[in-house]
Amino acid sequence: VKLRILYIGDGPDKWFARWLEGWKEPDTVIETCGFGSNARQVEHAFKEHLAADAVIRHSVAAERDGFDAVVIGCFFDPGLCEARELVRIPVVGVCEASLHVAATLSAGKFSVLVPRRKSIPRMSENARSYGLGSKIASWRILGLTMSGMIDRERTQCAILREARIAVEQDLAETVCLGCTAMAGQAKDVQEALGVPVLDPVLVGLKVAESRGTLWKRFGISHSKIGGYETPPSDEFMPVLEQASSPAPATKKIGQLIRRIKP
Amino acid sequence: VKLRILYIGDGPDKWFARWLEGWKEPDTVIETCGFGSNARQVEHAFKEHLAADAVIRHSVAAERDGFDAVVIGCFFDPGLCEARELVRIPVVGVCEASLHVAATLSAGKFSVLVPRRKSIPRMSENARSYGLGSKIASWRILGLTMSGMIDRERTQCAILREARIAVEQDLAETVCLGCTAMAGQAKDVQEALGVPVLDPVLVGLKVAESRGTLWKRFGISHSKIGGYETPPSDEFMPVLEQASSPAPATKKIGQLIRRIKP
Amino acid sequence: VKLRILYIGDGPDKWFARWLEGWKEPDTVIETCGFGSNARQVEHAFKEHLAADAVIRHSVAAERDGFDAVVIGCFFDPGLCEARELVRIPVVGVCEASLHVAATLSAGKFSVLVPRRKSIPRMSENARSYGLGSKIASWRILGLTMSGMIDRERTQCAILREARIAVEQDLAETVCLGCTAMAGQAKDVQEALGVPVLDPVLVGLKVAESRGTLWKRFGISHSKIGGYETPPSDEFMPVLEQASSPAPATKKIGQLIRRIKP
Amino acid sequence: VKLRILYIGDGPDKWFARWLEGWKEPDTVIETCGFGSNARQVEHAFKEHLAADAVIRHSVAAERDGFDAVVIGCFFDPGLCEARELVRIPVVGVCEASLHVAATLSAGKFSVLVPRRKSIPRMSENARSYGLGSKIASWRILGLTMSGMIDRERTQCAILREARIAVEQDLAETVCLGCTAMAGQAKDVQEALGVPVLDPVLVGLKVAESRGTLWKRFGISHSKIGGYETPPSDEFMPVLEQASSPAPATKKIGQLIRRIKP
Amino acid sequence: VKLRILYIGDGPDKWFARWLEGWKEPDTVIETCGFGSNARQVEHAFKEHLAADAVIRHSVAAERDGFDAVVIGCFFDPGLCEARELVRIPVVGVCEASLHVAATLSAGKFSVLVPRRKSIPRMSENARSYGLGSKIASWRILGLTMSGMIDRERTQCAILREARIAVEQDLAETVCLGCTAMAGQAKDVQEALGVPVLDPVLVGLKVAESRGTLWKRFGISHSKIGGYETPPSDEFMPVLEQASSPAPATKKIGQLIRRIKP
Amino acid sequence: VKLRILYIGDGPDKWFARWLEGWKEPDTVIETCGFGSNARQVEHAFKEHLAADAVIRHSVAAERDGFDAVVIGCFFDPGLCEARELVRIPVVGVCEASLHVAATLSAGKFSVLVPRRKSIPRMSENARSYGLGSKIASWRILGLTMSGMIDRERTQCAILREARIAVEQDLAETVCLGCTAMAGQAKDVQEALGVPVLDPVLVGLKVAESRGTLWKRFGISHSKIGGYETPPSDEFMPVLEQASSPAPATKKIGQLIRRIKP
Repeated sequence: VKLRILYIGDGPDKWFARWLEGWKEPDTVIETCGFGSNARQVEHAFKEHLAADAVIRHSVAAERDGFDAVVIGCFFDPGLCEARELVRIPVVGVCEASLHVAATLSAGKFSVLVPRRKSIPRMSENARSYGLGSKIASWRILGLTMSGMIDRERTQCAILREARIAVEQDLAETVCLGCTAMAGQAKDVQEALGVPVLDPVLVGLKVAESRGTLWKRFGISHSKIGGYETPPSDEFMPVLEQASSPAPATKKIGQLIRRIKP
Repeated sequence: VKLRILYIGDGPDKWFARWLEGWKEPDTVIETCGFGSNARQVEHAFKEHLAADAVIRHSVAAERDGFDAVVIGCFFDPGLCEARELVRIPVVGVCEASLHVAATLSAGKFSVLVPRRKSIPRMSENARSYGLGSKIASWRILGLTMSGMIDRERTQCAILREARIAVEQDLAETVCLGCTAMAGQAKDVQEALGVPVLDPVLVGLKVAESRGTLWKRFGISHSKIGGYETPPSDEFMPVLEQASSPAPATKKIGQLIRRIKP
Repeated sequence: VKLRILYIGDGPDKWFARWLEGWKEPDTVIETCGFGSNARQVEHAFKEHLAADAVIRHSVAAERDGFDAVVIGCFFDPGLCEARELVRIPVVGVCEASLHVAATLSAGKFSVLVPRRKSIPRMSENARSYGLGSKIASWRILGLTMSGMIDRERTQCAILREARIAVEQDLAETVCLGCTAMAGQAKDVQEALGVPVLDPVLVGLKVAESRGTLWKRFGISHSKIGGYETPPSDEFMPVLEQASSPAPATKKIGQLIRRIKP
Repeated sequence: VKLRILYIGDGPDKWFARWLEGWKEPDTVIETCGFGSNARQVEHAFKEHLAADAVIRHSVAAERDGFDAVVIGCFFDPGLCEARELVRIPVVGVCEASLHVAATLSAGKFSVLVPRRKSIPRMSENARSYGLGSKIASWRILGLTMSGMIDRERTQCAILREARIAVEQDLAETVCLGCTAMAGQAKDVQEALGVPVLDPVLVGLKVAESRGTLWKRFGISHSKIGGYETPPSDEFMPVLEQASSPAPATKKIGQLIRRIKP
Repeated sequence: VKLRILYIGDGPDKWFARWLEGWKEPDTVIETCGFGSNARQVEHAFKEHLAADAVIRHSVAAERDGFDAVVIGCFFDPGLCEARELVRIPVVGVCEASLHVAATLSAGKFSVLVPRRKSIPRMSENARSYGLGSKIASWRILGLTMSGMIDRERTQCAILREARIAVEQDLAETVCLGCTAMAGQAKDVQEALGVPVLDPVLVGLKVAESRGTLWKRFGISHSKIGGYETPPSDEFMPVLEQASSPAPATKKIGQLIRRIKP
Repeated sequence: VKLRILYIGDGPDKWFARWLEGWKEPDTVIETCGFGSNARQVEHAFKEHLAADAVIRHSVAAERDGFDAVVIGCFFDPGLCEARELVRIPVVGVCEASLHVAATLSAGKFSVLVPRRKSIPRMSENARSYGLGSKIASWRILGLTMSGMIDRERTQCAILREARIAVEQDLAETVCLGCTAMAGQAKDVQEALGVPVLDPVLVGLKVAESRGTLWKRFGISHSKIGGYETPPSDEFMPVLEQASSPAPATKKIGQLIRRIKP
């Protein structure tokens, strides 16, 4: 099926958009927009809050603009619940997607590599609320800041070192890269260690294509009874519009999205 | 000790501020401010997001203004993690406080009454992440909207009905009112049923007084190593200020806080 | 990508192969084979054992024949672990796939409908070992035997009845049909109840297409270190061949597979 | 509020009573009594049993004498359940109190330091039955006997060493001192490590003041329906009296309590 | 092997000793003693505390007198941990024994019938600490007091009624009678319902014979490193003796034990 | 009671049958048969599948031949569920039996020693489904293949080394040998370390004697309602017979069983 997918998030690299282009299926059109300048490099709950704000606004606009799925490109999955509440189209968090895939690739458990210990409480709460807490062998720490990860070689070394310990000592059978700033670095580690190493951006995208298909062809998306129940639109639309003045929200996204030639 | 406590949240009633006044200890000064007009009656994650925004801004301002503790007056505990990240003074979520107290009042389990089923997934995630998921006998649903709870008599009936079922069928030993809009309604139910019934506003306030004391006299507040690590202030202060222009954030709070005669 | 997928399992209906044809993506070629006459209508562990035997043999042959993924078409996921141990291509169990998808569609929990109570202990063990035990709202029983489910109208009634109770009383936000004999019956129930209702055959197929792509384009399949480690081929190949004499295993499959015009 | 609190337990030091005096709020009157000579230095379940005996008798007498709350000054919380069963006034176990406070100070997990490994099974059972098992990062062992802890300098060294490992390796965000014989040693470690370090005696006392207030002003104490249901008084009063003859139980307590000038 | 087993507990009936005699293996010699007049009909933690006292004293004496195993004849397993701490011979709690056997008889879960709701929090804590919390389908309440259970016909009716609901509604596959006062009533219910119904006295006895054999022939009993580490005997022997003066503890037991003709 | 027990499994040694003879009770007659040549040295799920096949056939034949219990002599417990489904006599898995016994010997947790990491995911799934996951301190790896364990001295060294680490670092209070190829090696390690060390063959046998007695004298065996419900015999008997042609299944066992002089 022809799918239009919006990737919300900031790539670790100027070639990031090109990677997405290379990873998608031929029939997929992928567009991207960032979390906004205040929310780049989400490490703290405060920035996660700002990123959630962007996710909320972009998801609502994406649905209006006819997108078939949205990917939240941050391993905290900021705004995942809020966005699912406001739209019907599938919203995929790269962490949620990666953990579910990792679980099915492992007879036993898998490990997640994170830049710093700061992230672990929040992320392991998420893992538990996704239902997958019991599948985590370990959270391993690279000891790198978000900006430190710009040095890709040093990051690669740290990933390789911690992934190896995860596999050998913690008995992880699969390794998840736990930050989109590590995008593009999974393949070499997978080859070096001989276990699946998941790039959250790649996995998020492929899961979004699958969910976009389930939605477009079979009408299956997240439930609208219970936790994702949509609030009355006269409650949230004015708020969304008020904040994004003078330009309406949909326009704003139009501006933010850097179009990639499909 | 003399304590200054900021209660962030909207009372169910014009007499709400008076109740707080009656419930606090003599040496406590309590001031209140709301979540802002967009975030009143938090039922959806979207509004929770807006309420978190208010909690973040007010908590930061409260610390600057010399408050000793902050109470988040919504049973979703919106912004609890974000606020603890940004300030050193104790931040008390009424849900977190109530669940911990309820756990120590019950040899077995306790139940929580919520207005609608919408809230249960989010709140039970919170309960689990507070570590207390295994102590919950049941989440029982009143079948009332937020605005429906303005009718206090009808609300009282629903509370009594569901609390009784919780005690008799679900074997709850304590009952928590799971929404600040039910404030002021616990006492009669407690007398009718003969089990502790917790008013989240009352419990939140008393726990805040206790934590304010631990902080002011003994320097004990939430940990700053790990999940509540503070981001660099040059990252979050500009954002806070930019959003609240033209008036600086602290001023803005000054305006929002309706002072109660201490 | 062009994918060749082997669906192992028996359809509830003569039109079953046609449904698969209608559900797959245009580039997918799907072929099917059954569990063998002894293992039809898997209800007991004994039959599950026989079905696992078929899964083992067909999976090994499928990998040799160049298939890109295998789907195990029984909600017990018989032979899932054994097959993953013996092959590198993705092996998808319809139960595992459905539970993971259901988890991401639900803010809270989801329910599974099973024909009889007999299946619940085994299936809930599986759910727990997939890591998803905490996401299950309830296992609901249709009160139908495997052969009773041939009456599709009566089955539809039972599904609708139990699904409604799951949603209203157990607070399920998504419903899984817990037996491939219910294939083709999800759509109407989804429309009637307004929550996602998952057909395990459909979900198994779509997940297999996604995993086939991850494998064929990105080399990602289940881990071969740990629980899915492959035994020395001189240990298992003779056994596989010995049992399937006179015709070699790969031939045998060639005979069993009813080719569907791609 | 004016509160009378009974602290049952033996201090690690002759200045212990003075510390309690310094830690309480101005309006609190605190009195203390020990577990009896047989039950000093509770390390084994057998001594815990003897200590529970003292807790039962003293709690019943304390309620009669008009106390507003009781603190059990041993990290095994001996007799916590039994005492709550027999009285209506709040009974606070220092372990239960400390674990609940530690949980709210930590975004992630916290560690408990214990003298020897002997205590871990019993205490971790308690932690789990309080509902907080999932919040424990580690139980770390000082390698000291109860009598060894009289050497406060050596104890301080051991605490500092293990607390540091807890924070750095086990990712604890808060540290609990897991024995009242470590009372008075938290503050320096807290300053050295920069995370909250909880003194169980201090936390037990402050929680008792808070619960005493909830009880005295708002009638909230542990539930009397379910696990803490009171037995018929004609069953337990004769037993209590018989054991403490010739002097009645209340007198006996009067003798045991060393009054601290309020 | 020839085994001498001490059953500590009070039978529901004057024929109780005769049942034990009928249930034991030919080579077993069984002797019994009660919990003492104060601790008969253990329903409350207070009585459990008194019963534990008897268990401690009798177990120590039993080891000295050459018994090969001890059975604690109360479904609260009072003093189980304390007794294991003080002796090397196997100590069997009827609840612990019954839950472990029930777990191995059930592919899914089992239910426990208790006289009143009072017992559930304590017993389910025990079940969880034995590691078996996840195997419990339900705790069902007979609605009978301890003394009410003297009417065996009425008790039988209540057992049958609740056991049937456990099997049909809660999907229990095995039923445990959760009080030794129901001894002798399992067999008829087992025949009526067609599922295993466990008599805690019978199961406790048979497990004690098995453990006695493991101990006497193979030297296997509970671990003495960790939680059951024995305290220094100069700490506990004087206490035991002091309490039982003027006659030494072993004598006292000698008096208490009603010998059954072997 | 006189018991006839069938031990299905391959001993690590030519003296194996003699050990069994020495370990059983005088009244027990024990006979043995192997898993068949294809399924010797079960390390992989594929072989476990073959072993299950043998267990199914031998258990059914054993029941017909008048055996009172069956022991599955492989720590994966292959075919445990399938065999219980098909027969009424007790079927004991050596892993299930050992874990339950280990749990009751430990106040805290116990460890299991396995030859290689390959086994851990499957076995820990089993442990969790037996309900005992929370009692496991660690799975420790000997680093030996199945055939490597033929060197008993080297195996003994590895057992001693890992058992010691389990006790000292992982705080295990009991150690389980997690493979029947380690049979006969527990006793020396138990003496060296001073904690119970369980031989799975010995424990499996003694538990089978206990269960055989419960069954023969009291009619208690696994439940036949729920997960172990027997399939209609006209479904499984033809399959069993067909596979074992030309000789019928019961004959076949008669041939396989090497009789040990009772």
